[in-house]
Amino acid sequence: MLMPEIAKLGHVSLVTPNLEKSLWFFHEVLGLEITERSHNTVYLRANGEFEHHSLVLKAGDRAYVDHVGWRVKRPDDVEGFAHLLTKSGTEVKHLPKGHEAGQGDAIRFQMPTGHTFEMYYDVEKPKAPEEIRSVLKNQTYRSWNRGIAPRRIDHVNLWTSQNPGDAHAWLSEHLGFKLREYIRLDNGHVAGGWMSVTPLVHDIAVMAAPHAPTSARFHHVAYWLDNAQDVLRACDILREYGIMPDQGPGKHGVSQALFTYVKDPGSGHRVELFSNGYLIFEPDWEPLEWTEDEFELALCYWGPTEYRPHRDQHPMDETTEA
Amino acid sequence: MLMPEIAKLGHVSLVTPNLEKSLWFFHEVLGLEITERSHNTVYLRANGEFEHHSLVLKAGDRAYVDHVGWRVKRPDDVEGFAHLLTKSGTEVKHLPKGHEAGQGDAIRFQMPTGHTFEMYYDVEKPKAPEEIRSVLKNQTYRSWNRGIAPRRIDHVNLWTSQNPGDAHAWLSEHLGFKLREYIRLDNGHVAGGWMSVTPLVHDIAVMAAPHAPTSARFHHVAYWLDNAQDVLRACDILREYGIMPDQGPGKHGVSQALFTYVKDPGSGHRVELFSNGYLIFEPDWEPLEWTEDEFELALCYWGPTEYRPHRDQHPMDETTEA
Amino acid sequence: MLMPEIAKLGHVSLVTPNLEKSLWFFHEVLGLEITERSHNTVYLRANGEFEHHSLVLKAGDRAYVDHVGWRVKRPDDVEGFAHLLTKSGTEVKHLPKGHEAGQGDAIRFQMPTGHTFEMYYDVEKPKAPEEIRSVLKNQTYRSWNRGIAPRRIDHVNLWTSQNPGDAHAWLSEHLGFKLREYIRLDNGHVAGGWMSVTPLVHDIAVMAAPHAPTSARFHHVAYWLDNAQDVLRACDILREYGIMPDQGPGKHGVSQALFTYVKDPGSGHRVELFSNGYLIFEPDWEPLEWTEDEFELALCYWGPTEYRPHRDQHPMDETTEA
Amino acid sequence: MLMPEIAKLGHVSLVTPNLEKSLWFFHEVLGLEITERSHNTVYLRANGEFEHHSLVLKAGDRAYVDHVGWRVKRPDDVEGFAHLLTKSGTEVKHLPKGHEAGQGDAIRFQMPTGHTFEMYYDVEKPKAPEEIRSVLKNQTYRSWNRGIAPRRIDHVNLWTSQNPGDAHAWLSEHLGFKLREYIRLDNGHVAGGWMSVTPLVHDIAVMAAPHAPTSARFHHVAYWLDNAQDVLRACDILREYGIMPDQGPGKHGVSQALFTYVKDPGSGHRVELFSNGYLIFEPDWEPLEWTEDEFELALCYWGPTEYRPHRDQHPMDETTEA
Repeated sequence: MLMPEIAKLGHVSLVTPNLEKSLWFFHEVLGLEITERSHNTVYLRANGEFEHHSLVLKAGDRAYVDHVGWRVKRPDDVEGFAHLLTKSGTEVKHLPKGHEAGQGDAIRFQMPTGHTFEMYYDVEKPKAPEEIRSVLKNQTYRSWNRGIAPRRIDHVNLWTSQNPGDAHAWLSEHLGFKLREYIRLDNGHVAGGWMSVTPLVHDIAVMAAPHAPTSARFHHVAYWLDNAQDVLRACDILREYGIMPDQGPGKHGVSQALFTYVKDPGSGHRVELFSNGYLIFEPDWEPLEWTEDEFELALCYWGPTEYRPHRDQHPMDETTEA
Repeated sequence: MLMPEIAKLGHVSLVTPNLEKSLWFFHEVLGLEITERSHNTVYLRANGEFEHHSLVLKAGDRAYVDHVGWRVKRPDDVEGFAHLLTKSGTEVKHLPKGHEAGQGDAIRFQMPTGHTFEMYYDVEKPKAPEEIRSVLKNQTYRSWNRGIAPRRIDHVNLWTSQNPGDAHAWLSEHLGFKLREYIRLDNGHVAGGWMSVTPLVHDIAVMAAPHAPTSARFHHVAYWLDNAQDVLRACDILREYGIMPDQGPGKHGVSQALFTYVKDPGSGHRVELFSNGYLIFEPDWEPLEWTEDEFELALCYWGPTEYRPHRDQHPMDETTEA
Repeated sequence: MLMPEIAKLGHVSLVTPNLEKSLWFFHEVLGLEITERSHNTVYLRANGEFEHHSLVLKAGDRAYVDHVGWRVKRPDDVEGFAHLLTKSGTEVKHLPKGHEAGQGDAIRFQMPTGHTFEMYYDVEKPKAPEEIRSVLKNQTYRSWNRGIAPRRIDHVNLWTSQNPGDAHAWLSEHLGFKLREYIRLDNGHVAGGWMSVTPLVHDIAVMAAPHAPTSARFHHVAYWLDNAQDVLRACDILREYGIMPDQGPGKHGVSQALFTYVKDPGSGHRVELFSNGYLIFEPDWEPLEWTEDEFELALCYWGPTEYRPHRDQHPMDETTEA
Repeated sequence: MLMPEIAKLGHVSLVTPNLEKSLWFFHEVLGLEITERSHNTVYLRANGEFEHHSLVLKAGDRAYVDHVGWRVKRPDDVEGFAHLLTKSGTEVKHLPKGHEAGQGDAIRFQMPTGHTFEMYYDVEKPKAPEEIRSVLKNQTYRSWNRGIAPRRIDHVNLWTSQNPGDAHAWLSEHLGFKLREYIRLDNGHVAGGWMSVTPLVHDIAVMAAPHAPTSARFHHVAYWLDNAQDVLRACDILREYGIMPDQGPGKHGVSQALFTYVKDPGSGHRVELFSNGYLIFEPDWEPLEWTEDEFELALCYWGPTEYRPHRDQHPMDETTEA
């Protein structure tokens, strides 16, 4: 049997204490479209996405990340991962088709940091309502239909108070993620690593947050825009809706991401709006190491300049719970 | 044994009757950097590329495409493809390490249309000279160092007087390319198909050119720029160097490519400068069909409008030999 | 007494046989905001405009330009122009305050080609409704509120079957417009001239249309966008609304305008969406002459290439009546 | 006789303790072209400028601004200003033709803050050398020829330890600058004002720097780029040359300038690279007042967020001497 494989980041499921405000932010301002609503839960996706949702908003008493959902490559890979994870001592929970709207059978489990992951293969691909459907066959909703209008989900960035190097090793060994770039501090520890199963520089990053209250923190989910200029337009739109970007615009050295961060005012969950970057097609890619000396360049090719290697003073330290 | 797989488009090798002028175009105007020269041959690559070359320019008595080079996923895949192709009746030629500068053992063969392909795994990854090296670890040459300055090679577009549907079937069966989008004419024939082994919408396209003098024509090699605006800047640069773009700027419906085409004045070989587009991460992607009725939208979401389904009057009919 | 002076292009008043469809185009698609409606007339302006309107749409039995409105520099200049024009034999009609909504006393007259002009000084500057008001003090409506969302009106382009050189001379002598660039044909005639009272390359252009049915044709009114990328986004939006741009995108040599043209589907009146260009601050600017040999470069630095000096075959020959 | 008038900002003359490094910055990195050299002085201009220079670099023992040069509207206006300024008690020095290369007769004087201004009308308009001349008649050097490649000088920003409101009044009364936007602190003082004689929001700004060592400080000279994306590309280029932008990118509320600031590493003089913004054509523009409450929005629509109304902690407090 082939080893099971992850195909792509599927979705992020966010719990918010203010569903109405979070929905206003993700639907009106960010411009994600709604595919389904049920039981205090709303399912959304970006205009270039075909699958049922890339974001789930659930009403709850506090803000936390319910889970990060990964779509696997083959129908059997859900069970394949369940088998392998169980064998290696990870507790795996099975969820029947429809437990999450639009999805088939799924499993859930925690990585050692405590972050909850979901895996599934089957997913509905609903068409857009005709009045907002793109004239293009390869795009779901018409271009620029609403708010910032990103094309698709891109990656998640997790923070942990544990050693992130251990998390990278676990993600590599059990889920097949390849390390693409990482930062090594002078003390030998890895401060952060960017990993992917796709040619994207990262589908997932895990970063050190030594002073975080728990080992499972969530830094951001990223949505992709086609042009750097579209990120600048996003800043205009945010400000006109009374929302100040959290950081940016700027360009990271790592991944060459052109970024702006912003927090959902309903939950505090952070979103990265990003463009540019680069793709990795080389089959023999060697992970790129950035040293502590290169920390500033790694995080800031240009833009906001107040990054510091000691993360307790980091302006982006306010993460939400994962 | 695993089936052999292609990892990525590696390079295109172009023969030009005016090497000096072609070199001026690709180096000075397009901004590719030179990694090596030998025996009337020049090896070039874009600023974000790590491998030895993505373009080979060879002096010759007429313009034609010597071959299209594909890098395979694993060292054994070169021999794996050689074995399978031979078994299926394709004549395979072995080339020793160094036959092409910077490369290891390779094979060459023709697809049924007559287009010559090369496959290899080993390739040198020379650093850029220090004075033009990027400060970034994930980029080879410094940004915007020269001319138009694309980031990387993207895809090739081949034309054939044969039935392109047969070529798509062959590429799928023997090389593992997946069909992503295609155009079907009212007579049932496929006018063109876009295929990839990567999440790019196409690493290769094969289109119908019923009146072409041979079955192996070359339409263009594409280089990627990060932003649509960078393609507009490219148009400025071309015109300032006395070169009128061949077509564009515009946006194709198929692939959503933001494009401008331009011909190397030394050889007539066509280059596409492009950005935007979309990526396919879905493991169950169904090829998108565009009908003859949708031909105009398929080729022109907006921009130049003189496309016609009957290719004998097509303004881009002048292809070079492959 | 000082010579009267024009301060700026104020507005264009367009008659349309399909007010509903024209309003859909200018309000929903182009994104102009509505300031007032009355008697089958709608007043609109762009998001960065402070004055009451830059566009008037009036229901009528056929499409024509009712008038082009110019705002003068000082209150007395309305009467100053009335006096001078009358003295030089131009018939001047006085319109009382409120004849056009939001405006004070005005005059109307025809230039010798038959195009109707209006002049006024007093104009209301209504605030935007709070729910779509910009957080910025120097912008009326919030950024990117609707459709294409241009910033402001820029210029008008008139066509005439008369000698345009005579029109340029008249505009210079009677209204103070300075010639900035012009095209001279080999037969000595001027094919077109770009003129302004502001640092814009043109507030008005008058071009030759030798075969036009009348001497007073209207080619387009232009709206400004801040970035070239915004014009490309506009093309996406047009196509998603089922409207194919009439020409473009491209960049003119004259004025360096980054342009796309599109016709209001309700009336056939043409709008230019444009960006870039350059400003003229030099007090001793000498009009730039482009010869017939340079015609292609003058009209097309890059982009659509089918311009021809003999305008009877010009693809943009379909003008509306002025 | 008509009142004398300023037509435009002509140039800034900067003294640098490291001419070689400053020249590297302005010529290689910023991409200004050199028109003339003489006596430790180099004259430069941007690719869209027609006049002899918009920047003078002079070798000296410390960094300071020698003068800001303004071009007047009519030949007689040099003498007209000399007469009026002398009459009002300002000491005026006459400089013969050629005192500054490429210029005719000029005058110099200090505004009450101590900033030195120059006025002149006659100026040479040298053509670009053929090998780097634009194919366009309305542009001097070919597009994107070198480095960042801005189009033209835009404005100067001066800081003073005096009350800037007095400076604004002086500039209005004696030089005809109109106040466009200003910030008023709760204590009634004006913290800064943006003024122009052209439709640009500002040809000049004068800001409060209460703790500056002298009353005549220089904050920056600004160069214009056509698109926001061009400013982002500039950031890439700066970083590749080892230069970290001083602030930005971001968008000011006042003037809507899309900005990045960077200091010449040879002298410490600051340059703003900017795009977007808006133009004022209204003849009855009322200066826009931003209150202390609105200080953050006035300076930062989005981007760097550490602005504070009490300027002694301002990160951009390091100005050079004017």
